[in-house]
Amino acid sequence: MHSVNVKFEPDNVRGQVAAGSTVAEAASHLAVPIAQPCGALGQCGKCQCVVRAARVEETGDQRAVLGDSLYDRGVRLACQTRLLSDAEIEILPVARVGEQRILVDASTDLAAVEPDVRLSKTYLELDPPTLTDQRADLDRIVDALAAEGVRVEVTEAPRMVRGLAHLCRASQYRVTAVAADGGLVAVEPGDTRAHAYAVAVDIGTTTVVAYLADLRSGHRRAVASAVNPQVAYGDDVVSRIRYLQDHEDGIVTLQGAVVSTVDGLIGELVTEAGIDDAWIYRVVVVGNATMTHLLWGADPSAIAQAPYIPTYRMSLGGRAADVGLCRAPCARLLSLPGIAGWIGADTTGVILSARLHEATEPFVAVDIGTNGEIVLGRDGRLLACSAAAGPAFEGAQIFQGMRAAPGAVDTVDLAGAEIRYTTIGGSPARGICGSGLFDAMAALRRAGVVNEAGTMLRPEAAEPHGLAPELAARLTMVDDQPAFVLVPDAETALDGPVVLTQRDVRQIQLAKGAIAAGIQIGLCELGMEPDQVARVVLAGAFGSYVRPQSAADIGLFPPELVSRTTSVGNAAGAGAFVAAVSDQRRHEADAIAASVEYLELATRLDFSEAFAEAMVFPSL
Amino acid sequence: MHSVNVKFEPDNVRGQVAAGSTVAEAASHLAVPIAQPCGALGQCGKCQCVVRAARVEETGDQRAVLGDSLYDRGVRLACQTRLLSDAEIEILPVARVGEQRILVDASTDLAAVEPDVRLSKTYLELDPPTLTDQRADLDRIVDALAAEGVRVEVTEAPRMVRGLAHLCRASQYRVTAVAADGGLVAVEPGDTRAHAYAVAVDIGTTTVVAYLADLRSGHRRAVASAVNPQVAYGDDVVSRIRYLQDHEDGIVTLQGAVVSTVDGLIGELVTEAGIDDAWIYRVVVVGNATMTHLLWGADPSAIAQAPYIPTYRMSLGGRAADVGLCRAPCARLLSLPGIAGWIGADTTGVILSARLHEATEPFVAVDIGTNGEIVLGRDGRLLACSAAAGPAFEGAQIFQGMRAAPGAVDTVDLAGAEIRYTTIGGSPARGICGSGLFDAMAALRRAGVVNEAGTMLRPEAAEPHGLAPELAARLTMVDDQPAFVLVPDAETALDGPVVLTQRDVRQIQLAKGAIAAGIQIGLCELGMEPDQVARVVLAGAFGSYVRPQSAADIGLFPPELVSRTTSVGNAAGAGAFVAAVSDQRRHEADAIAASVEYLELATRLDFSEAFAEAMVFPSL
Repeated sequence: MHSVNVKFEPDNVRGQVAAGSTVAEAASHLAVPIAQPCGALGQCGKCQCVVRAARVEETGDQRAVLGDSLYDRGVRLACQTRLLSDAEIEILPVARVGEQRILVDASTDLAAVEPDVRLSKTYLELDPPTLTDQRADLDRIVDALAAEGVRVEVTEAPRMVRGLAHLCRASQYRVTAVAADGGLVAVEPGDTRAHAYAVAVDIGTTTVVAYLADLRSGHRRAVASAVNPQVAYGDDVVSRIRYLQDHEDGIVTLQGAVVSTVDGLIGELVTEAGIDDAWIYRVVVVGNATMTHLLWGADPSAIAQAPYIPTYRMSLGGRAADVGLCRAPCARLLSLPGIAGWIGADTTGVILSARLHEATEPFVAVDIGTNGEIVLGRDGRLLACSAAAGPAFEGAQIFQGMRAAPGAVDTVDLAGAEIRYTTIGGSPARGICGSGLFDAMAALRRAGVVNEAGTMLRPEAAEPHGLAPELAARLTMVDDQPAFVLVPDAETALDGPVVLTQRDVRQIQLAKGAIAAGIQIGLCELGMEPDQVARVVLAGAFGSYVRPQSAADIGLFPPELVSRTTSVGNAAGAGAFVAAVSDQRRHEADAIAASVEYLELATRLDFSEAFAEAMVFPSL
Repeated sequence: MHSVNVKFEPDNVRGQVAAGSTVAEAASHLAVPIAQPCGALGQCGKCQCVVRAARVEETGDQRAVLGDSLYDRGVRLACQTRLLSDAEIEILPVARVGEQRILVDASTDLAAVEPDVRLSKTYLELDPPTLTDQRADLDRIVDALAAEGVRVEVTEAPRMVRGLAHLCRASQYRVTAVAADGGLVAVEPGDTRAHAYAVAVDIGTTTVVAYLADLRSGHRRAVASAVNPQVAYGDDVVSRIRYLQDHEDGIVTLQGAVVSTVDGLIGELVTEAGIDDAWIYRVVVVGNATMTHLLWGADPSAIAQAPYIPTYRMSLGGRAADVGLCRAPCARLLSLPGIAGWIGADTTGVILSARLHEATEPFVAVDIGTNGEIVLGRDGRLLACSAAAGPAFEGAQIFQGMRAAPGAVDTVDLAGAEIRYTTIGGSPARGICGSGLFDAMAALRRAGVVNEAGTMLRPEAAEPHGLAPELAARLTMVDDQPAFVLVPDAETALDGPVVLTQRDVRQIQLAKGAIAAGIQIGLCELGMEPDQVARVVLAGAFGSYVRPQSAADIGLFPPELVSRTTSVGNAAGAGAFVAAVSDQRRHEADAIAASVEYLELATRLDFSEAFAEAMVFPSL
């Protein structure tokens, strides 16, 4: 097969690919990151690019997906455009991945975690062997440990004996033996008792955050984060599952992507703290079930279709090296237990770190993402359910939506008839992210631009409805739909303004309706009225940035709860951290996972009705 | 670097190698097996070949090593001859490996081993999941096991969860769960309770033997054997240790060689028995310390120099896959404990299978090889020592010596003045192996050709000494030494007769002297006279083929013990077998290893004297 020369802008990456490759395949081949939220199905319209080439082949109905205005200006979908000749390709900002605001902090005071792990490091000054004391190196170490009261078994012989003869001699038989859970874990040269670390990892669908924990003090020593490179295979878990069903080595590809990311983060942590990676003895992971399945190499496909069954729900342990992690050669990998296929170990982590299982008053906790995980508690009873919000709050399926990256409109205020906004990093506006969508939606409701049913005024209806002229001037039409201009002078893909379209409003209604319905059914199941809720807990990145008032204004929860709302930040990651530092807290996680009742909304006859009702905006 | 074309005969293997490679390197590169007993040092003279090439470069003093007669006839050393142009190379028979008589049977009645392993297989017919029973696949299995009274932990998550979702669905949730030592080991589709196997392996320096054990019945189901391909890197353990000290990746090379051999043997066993290799749950190995070190990937170098310290002596366990074994994907690899650096797990296996630790009468057990392992017992006290016999009994450092392969003279008898002999396989005589050497030596002593001090008659002294003319005619000179022709009309390398030279006699004296001295010092340590020994046990291949009378005639042990001698065959392999089938017997091995006293002959001031005395042949 002949090949063609390609050049990708703005990264100025050049290379050759097989003729007939799609732009997305070419990008993947040359390691140019490109967002494919729908998993290369030509449906989400996000992998936008402009292709300058003599010959291309277009597949799918790109005009329908992109809309006339983008299509006529030359924008194409990377996943649906095949290169038949040499080409120059510009990846548009909406399709670029790699810049993402990542939440690493949690409200939990991690410094307060009392370290408690079954790990001992014993420094041994051994007598070197002689003709009258011919004990073997390993036997000599095990004997000396026993003399110190530490009894160990050697269950991983290959790792323990490799290089041990040299290590003993080079260190003149001054070694530190590491024992964990009754087994000999490592023998290190010299006295390394001061060093013992764990890594806690929160694998999100979009971002991965890793923390380095000092097992001596319980303190956090470093933090690092990265975009989950699996976003190139789909923005949400369902797209990724579809990807791996369509590709023979899909699990290996997706596992490799997350493993190499975690490896990279561990490398950053180790460098920042100035430690040896051999001193990391455990890596504790949380994430939704699909993310942890892919880390372990399990097939998550059955999670995506009824009856939504994960391969495992329990806490799991194995060698970090067995999943391909290289940067923690002596570590055990542990994942916290999940609650159900759609309520993963991340939710267990939230409950654990925010101590929701010990709450004495009724609460509702929500982690808003593509999937809204909802935990409710009353009188010691814990209930969890999952609402499929879709990717709208992460910017996907929103016309000018984008992730929380620099240039994303993240707050919107209505001051009289004036629209004020901020962007992440203060950059020129490139699009709008989730927290901006909540604010914008609330503002449009208050301004009367969108009614309770979610219908947006058409430009010609502005005057009859008495809309202020400044706001009326912002009403326009985009691809035959009404749209409201939030930022006229923006640097979006192809320089259009940042708008919110009628279709965007529908997406927001679907997303918030699903979560609100989940909350409502959960409250009903616990026999509670909304005003009985003493505390609303917002977890996760989204929960940290969204304004409770805007959430209430668009009907995510009742207005009386606004003042009872707190945000706990990355409580999932904090849960991994406390479990990494404390065995007792880690075992608490098992008790939590076993005690939380899972409410499968799919089996609730009342869900459709609640969902339909919850899509309506509250009257103001 | 430019390359040259080479062709190896008699295997007719062709290929290209870098110019300047030695013949031995070229052979290794093209996978042509070639013996290098000394580890490519140009010392043993065994890697004989004839090179037809325009240009070669010779290193070392090949004439001195090979002797004038071979050198003048064009024979060269493969390890000391560099190829500078295209070449045709003939590997002479003495240098060919791959044909070897291998002892697989033992006198132990393996059918009598009562199976006893902590391994359970439980067949489960699980309810498939539904929306009202959303338990995860793995949790469902663990729950069902618990209901059957089998409590397991999942400690190797990556292996357990990979493919489990598909397996459960494809088998319609009819699975067999395998638990061992409190851990979940495997989940298999369907009802596989009838199948549970172990493999026992005896890794000898020269040969590897593997047995398939049925863990249900305790029966042996198949046996397979192969030459240890490490012979290409040195005939004895010291040569191999030297090889790995001289080569950066030496341990990896030698480990890979033995691992791929064991893998191949397991493949043969599985095919012969018609079973799935996933049903092999443990692989139990014995071998000398260097052999098991190399299997585990440990550096055995420190064993070769005082104070002779192995990396480990204890029994070890790890995953078979971790050393690179592919054909037993679910198996744990276990090695029996050794006794000291020069008394390995093979000796423990001999004691275990021959039940020497339960002997009520005084005994001496000897496993004759490059290293003679001696175990003595009296009144419940067990003593072990190791005598460095050198490789003479395996045919190395003997002028016409060879391994016990087809064409090797294996018995020699003196009938009047006639010399009678047999060869292995009845083939034309190509050389002489260990048992033939014992017999020939005894015959030459009885004929008066060699005196007590080991001096061989020169041809001209035959008549003065009154030697029968038929025997006198067999006396000749080889490279300025007296020699005795055993087989005039032989098919040895370059068609010379099979002879025993004066230098060969010296090698035999050194070898048998070391072992006899070891026995003597051991007896002395236990306060015994030779005639108090109730039983002499000969273990190993050599012990099976050697005639006790010949051994006594040359002074290996006193003549009064001939009638008390029994041979137990491959008792080391049998020890691995019983340990594989019975946990109780395997733990007995730990008790044996802990209770045997090791006698370091190197520290005995009386060893040199005993050795000098034992080199003398007994008077007849």
